[in-house]
Parts: sequence; structure tokens; C-alpha cells
Amino acid sequence: MNAVELIRRKRDGGELTREEIRYLIAGYVAGDVPEYQMSAFLMAVYFRGMSPEETARFTDVMLRSGSTIDLSSVPGRKVDKHSTGGVGDKVSLILAPMVAACGVAVPMISGRGLGHTGGTLDKLESIPGFRTGLSIKEYTDVIRETGLVLSGQTADVVPADRKMYALRDVTATVESIPLIAGSIMSKKLAEGIDALVLDVKTGNGAFMNSYDAAVALASALVGIGTKCGKETLAFITGMDEPLGTAVGNWLEVAESIECLKGKNVPDLMELTYILGGAMVHLGGKAATIADGMQQCRSAIWSGRAYEKFIQVVERQGGDSSFVREPVRYPAARHSMDVVAPSAGYLTGFDTRRIGVLAVELGAGRLKVGDPVDAAAGIILCRKIGDAVGMGDVIAVVRTDRDGAAEKAAREYCSCVTIGNSPPGRTPRVRATVDKDGVHSWTTPVSPSLPDTDAAR
Amino acid sequence: MNAVELIRRKRDGGELTREEIRYLIAGYVAGDVPEYQMSAFLMAVYFRGMSPEETARFTDVMLRSGSTIDLSSVPGRKVDKHSTGGVGDKVSLILAPMVAACGVAVPMISGRGLGHTGGTLDKLESIPGFRTGLSIKEYTDVIRETGLVLSGQTADVVPADRKMYALRDVTATVESIPLIAGSIMSKKLAEGIDALVLDVKTGNGAFMNSYDAAVALASALVGIGTKCGKETLAFITGMDEPLGTAVGNWLEVAESIECLKGKNVPDLMELTYILGGAMVHLGGKAATIADGMQQCRSAIWSGRAYEKFIQVVERQGGDSSFVREPVRYPAARHSMDVVAPSAGYLTGFDTRRIGVLAVELGAGRLKVGDPVDAAAGIILCRKIGDAVGMGDVIAVVRTDRDGAAEKAAREYCSCVTIGNSPPGRTPRVRATVDKDGVHSWTTPVSPSLPDTDAAR
Repeated sequence: MNAVELIRRKRDGGELTREEIRYLIAGYVAGDVPEYQMSAFLMAVYFRGMSPEETARFTDVMLRSGSTIDLSSVPGRKVDKHSTGGVGDKVSLILAPMVAACGVAVPMISGRGLGHTGGTLDKLESIPGFRTGLSIKEYTDVIRETGLVLSGQTADVVPADRKMYALRDVTATVESIPLIAGSIMSKKLAEGIDALVLDVKTGNGAFMNSYDAAVALASALVGIGTKCGKETLAFITGMDEPLGTAVGNWLEVAESIECLKGKNVPDLMELTYILGGAMVHLGGKAATIADGMQQCRSAIWSGRAYEKFIQVVERQGGDSSFVREPVRYPAARHSMDVVAPSAGYLTGFDTRRIGVLAVELGAGRLKVGDPVDAAAGIILCRKIGDAVGMGDVIAVVRTDRDGAAEKAAREYCSCVTIGNSPPGRTPRVRATVDKDGVHSWTTPVSPSLPDTDAAR
Repeated sequence: MNAVELIRRKRDGGELTREEIRYLIAGYVAGDVPEYQMSAFLMAVYFRGMSPEETARFTDVMLRSGSTIDLSSVPGRKVDKHSTGGVGDKVSLILAPMVAACGVAVPMISGRGLGHTGGTLDKLESIPGFRTGLSIKEYTDVIRETGLVLSGQTADVVPADRKMYALRDVTATVESIPLIAGSIMSKKLAEGIDALVLDVKTGNGAFMNSYDAAVALASALVGIGTKCGKETLAFITGMDEPLGTAVGNWLEVAESIECLKGKNVPDLMELTYILGGAMVHLGGKAATIADGMQQCRSAIWSGRAYEKFIQVVERQGGDSSFVREPVRYPAARHSMDVVAPSAGYLTGFDTRRIGVLAVELGAGRLKVGDPVDAAAGIILCRKIGDAVGMGDVIAVVRTDRDGAAEKAAREYCSCVTIGNSPPGRTPRVRATVDKDGVHSWTTPVSPSLPDTDAAR
């Protein structure tokens, strides 16, 4: 076996065996297969793809490149959620304690923000003292004690992915469905889960812009999970506007705390309940997703989800006084209102550009390793469908960087469209994908429990 | 400008500007663009190709990565020939002195054999003492004195190609028409030519197996030459059987010497006269290719071509006594006849495998840098169309390697097809390609001069 032959086979549209993939990946991690061969292979995969079986083999080989976490000492089914990333997507912060409060263990390994999207780790670390760099032992201890854990990837887990992702980033081979799917699923499968809920975003703020590409990615992810014996359910959800009303690390934590205390931010909480309901269902604590959603509402309404969040923040070293009194958090130095240039209805966002604006305000990073400002970001005062009067404040930008607020406020106006009539509503969940294929989705209605601001 | 962006643009089917290509190639030669980015770029080019303008820009940038040779001190038009490589293709050895004897200067830079094909340098170096590693000054001196020069590439000429070819070889990115065309033409344009004749092979012994691929490569080569102001004419020629009757370094030199002395090996000399005639025409010494072919026959018939060969061998340090008396050359240690397993007509060769057999006998190399045995190879006693009696000797294999002769003799039988009736004739030249497109070809007939064994 030699690497050139394997590159050539993939280049010509062939399929590699487990042993051949192992030869490439293990050789690459060990330094025997040089980076220039791996990058040529990755580009060939970009053009030729991988069959579902091959993608599952690739994922399994990646997974076995390092340690896997054994959570069998934690009772019950362990369920995680993964999102492909968007703007203002703070679902994990609310969902993880909410689902844990329903009695389903949530081992959650998250990533950092990159490009126009935020990352859960950066958000958590905006809470002073919060530690996301846990060892495997700490990770296991935290979930055993609190029922959830919010961690970054440990160095021992899937080392092949870390090395390969860095290479993909500099060789324009990131945007390949089997490579993305293998990267996501190898890390998820290594963390000790029994089931997985996926939030695959589509729309102008998503990595996968088109609906068809999102379905293709979801199908690849579900295919891998199923082949590896983990129940996996994907939701294709809209990312045509930022989720909720805050974009930026601490700003999103603060919004999540409000939601954990019962505030209803409609788009954010609808999605959080759906994904959470599915997790409670897959975790074996609810007969249906609708039943799971009811339990989630109850966990919020009763305050159990909020208390669970306080518990995990303290367990992971965070200063919970900021969670209890978010107003104490030091604000960014500069704040500027964005006023509507015309009247009408807000009909659309250039969501990706809003993510980029947040990065420019200091909330994100363009390069791995760049620092982020915790308090920087954007507060959205109008969302799609809202009426707008000329001169209304439609957003507030916050930053520590001199001059950045003016520029962002100016550019924000060109990221929103204001029309004469409100746009038609698009459903939050466009479809679901499970092992049997793609399905339509209707969100179950809940008559019995309040899910608005009235709750607390 | 950064390399990832340029890789992504090419990956997505875009076209690069001269400055962008220069950034990649100059950066790569200087070590600023790492090999893993160049290999990803090369794989993207493999899939996306390059436009004709982009291929010409790429070639020009490659050409300018090192020194170019100025032959303006040599009077008249300088014309070279390049073949894409085949089995038994010793045309250059006969053609270069023949065309030089017609008064057209021939600056010829050749390569070594690799894989199933032979290389002119290896053949020349089978003549004891013959030096192919000339400096630019020696190169210029030799052509000024003798009217031709037979050299390897000097270290200063197109260094980007040497580095890039080594990378393509280990990343399965060799078989890309713009990359092949750029590699060939940058070296040819650097050697100081005014015009170029190309022999693009098609058939089961060629790199470009299919006719369409051969035409595409020829069109790319002619396009580059034309854009760079050099008259370029390509012949698409058949490589469905080894050319002539010898495969192997010294064996091919010996066959060439016989042809230079007037022996007519029909397929070999037909091609040599056509290519040579075109060179004499492009060199301005003949009004038509047919007229050029007549001059070439005259150069052979008169002995001038043979004398020119002796002159250049001696000028480049070769021991011409072996050219004058080839029988003195030490034979390989082992020789074995291959006998026909059945009677009929020889209808076809697996030409590529015959090339590989010659390599296994010691005549070629699978890896750059492997040594070659000068006297090893194969003598073909029957060619396509010849009648074969059961037990007839159809070939002789020669090698210094113990045990290799038996194996090669056995396998040779499975490389030939013997049928009940002679196959139809296929023309040697399938088409020509010039700046105006693809044209049909009919070989001009020559009534006035003998071109058979009777000549001398």
C-alpha cells in the first residue's frame, strides 16, 4: 500500500477500504504520510466525495486515532446536541441544563467561534473563572455529579481531526460534506454519547447556505451515527436571521440566563424546546418529542433548568454571582444605537455579514487563536416581521475598540432590508432527517403550560 | 493575496491572473508557499483545468522561474521536437542529426525514462563517455559548432518545474493536461527555440491513451507555443506497438545507427521523416513538409546525417568507435528467445506492458534516480501484421539480471495477440494540430529517392 495509489484511487472516484483509510490517517498522525499527500487526498475527497459506508469508515478511523471517553459509570442514556453553527446561536447554554434538569445526562463538547459564527466555549468563558479545558477525569466527574458537562475537546480525543482540520483550513478543503461529517461525528462519538440530536442550519447565516446542501450534510451525519449504533436525529433549521436578540459572547450568556429564568424569546425558545424535547425523548425520559418538549417547558418554568445552570457554572469554576446578577458584568466601553433609515417592516438580514460585524466589534475571530472580547457584540431590537418606524433604534452595537462602533452601526443598516409589508412566515424547522430519510415537521402545540414571559 | 484564497478560487472553477500564478509559483520555489498548499492547488487544477490563456500564463511564469538560454548567436531558425513518450521511441537519435544535416539548428533538451517509457538521455548515455549534463555555455558552444546539441535540462532552467514535478509525482497530480503542457512547454521555450514540432502519442503504449485526450494535450501545447510567438505543429501519432524493432537503451542506439546508415525500419523511419520534414519546413529550409521530407531522405541517403551523429557524439565526449562498430558493444549476460505459442498473424501488442517488461529487464526505472542497464531490453522480430508460424522466434529478451529473462520471455507471450487474419492498417499519423485547429493528414509519397535498405 502506498499513499500515491490511494490518492489516485480517490481522485479517480474509487472507494477506500477501512485498512486503506487507516493507513492514510494513522500515517498522517504519525508523520509518515506527509502533509502534501494528505492535502492532495483531501482535495480529491472534496471533488469526489465518499460513499456513506466510506464516510462511516473514515469517521471510525478518525475516532480511533485517540482516546474515547467511557461514560458507562454515569447512569442512563447520555444525549448530546450539535449545531453546525450560526449567528446568535446560544441554544446550547439553555438546552444543556434544561435537558439535564429533565434527568437526561448531557455530555457536551463544544468548539470555539471561527469566521462569522460564534462558539459555545467562547460564550462560557465570558463567565469569569469558567473552565472549559477539562481532563477526561474532570469531564467524567462533572457529568456524574451534575448530570451535564460543558467542555472543550481534550487533547487526547480524536487528535487526527485537530491535525487534519488545521490542514483543511489552509488548503481550501473545509467545505466537503464527508470531511465535515467525519470531523463532527468522530468527536461526538468519542465523548461517550448514546444518542445525538443535530441542528443543521440552512440559510444566509449558515455554512451550508442551501437547503439541499443542509439535507445532504444531515443525511451524512445521521448515516454515520446510525452505522455506529447511536440513535441520531437531525433538524434542518432556518438561519436567515440571528437567533434571539443578542450576538456576542457575554451578551448571549445574559440572554440565555433570561431565558433560563422564563423569558420567551420566540425563535430562540421554540428551537430550544424542539431540540431539547428530542433529546429528552432519545434519552428515554419521554415517549414522544412533544412529551419531551413539555418536560423541558416544565424544567424552565419550575426554575430547575436555571438552578442546574448555576450548579454547572460553579462546578466548572465560574463565578455564579454574574449569572445571578448579570447587571454587575462590566459593559463594553463603547455603545452606539443603530437607527432605521426608513419605515416599514423588517423583511430580511444578511446574517453572515452581521456575524462578521460582530467579529469586527471584537466578539469573534478570523484566525484560530485570536482573542475575543467578552462584552462586545450586537443587541437586535427588531427582527424579521417587526414593524419599523423611521429613526427607531433597530440595534445597539457594543465594543471596546475605538472607532469600531461607528463603522459597525453604519454597516448594520446595509445588512437589513426594510419593506412595505411584513414577509410571509417561514417555519423554524424545515425538515427532520433520521435513519429512514427526510421528513416534514410540524411543531407540536402546547396548551397546558405557559411558555411566555408570564412564566416567572 | 493569500494562497488559500487562490486554491479556493481554482477549486471553484475560477481563473487566476498572471500575478496570482506568479505569487503561487515564486512563493513555492522560495519556500513561502508550503508543499501542502501547492499539492492542494495542483489537485484542484487536476479537476478544474485551466483556460488556454491561463495555461499560457502558467507556462510563462514557470519559464521565468529560472534562466533562459539565448541562442541568438547561432544563425538561422532553431527547431526542436518533443515526444510525449512511448516504447521504443528512438526517433530523436536519428532525427536530430538528420535535420541538422539539412541546415536547421536543433537544440534538443531531453529527459530520462520513467515508468514504461524510455528516455533519450538514458539512450545517449549508453554510448561510453557521452555527456548529457552540459552547462549553458557548453550547450551553446556545441550547437554553434555542430548545428545540434543533445543535452539534459540544466539546473538553472525552469527550477519550478523540477520541484513541482517531484511533488506531482507523489500526489497523483501528474495526469493533468495544463500541468503537463506547462511543464513541457516551459522547458522547451527556455531552451532558445524558434519553432517546435510535437509528437503526441495515442494508443495503448502512450501516457494519453485515448485519441481525444491526445488531441486535447496537443491543442494545449500548440496553444501555449502560439501564444508565446513560437510556431508549433503537433502530430498525433499511433503508439499501439513499440516503434521500430528495439526496446532498450543501447539496443535502440544500435537500431538508430543502422537507420542513419540507410536501413529502412518502416514505422520508425516513416515517422522520423514526417517529423524531420516538418522541422526542416519550420526551420525555413523547405517550402513544404513534403519538401522537408525529401531533404531528410537525402541527408540519410548521402550519409550526411550519420556523419553529423558521429560529430555530435564525439563533441559531447562519446566514444564513436562503438557507433562505427556497434558489434564491439558488450552484450547483456543473458539472452532468451520468445517463441510464438500459436500460428497466425500478429494483431496487437499490450505496448505499456512491454515497456514495463523492458524496465524489469533493467532497461528503465520505476523511481527517479534508479540506475539503468545499457544493454538490457527486447528485440522485436515480429510486428503488427506480420505472419507468425508456431514456434517462430517473435522476440529476444536481453538482461544482466539472473532469472529476469525467463520471466520476461514468458510474459512477453501474453503481451501479444495472434489472430487468424492480418489486422487492417492504421495510419501512423492520425491528425495534425496547429494554431488553426485539428487537421487530417496524408503522408506525402516520395518517388524520386530510395528510402529502403537498398540505399547504402
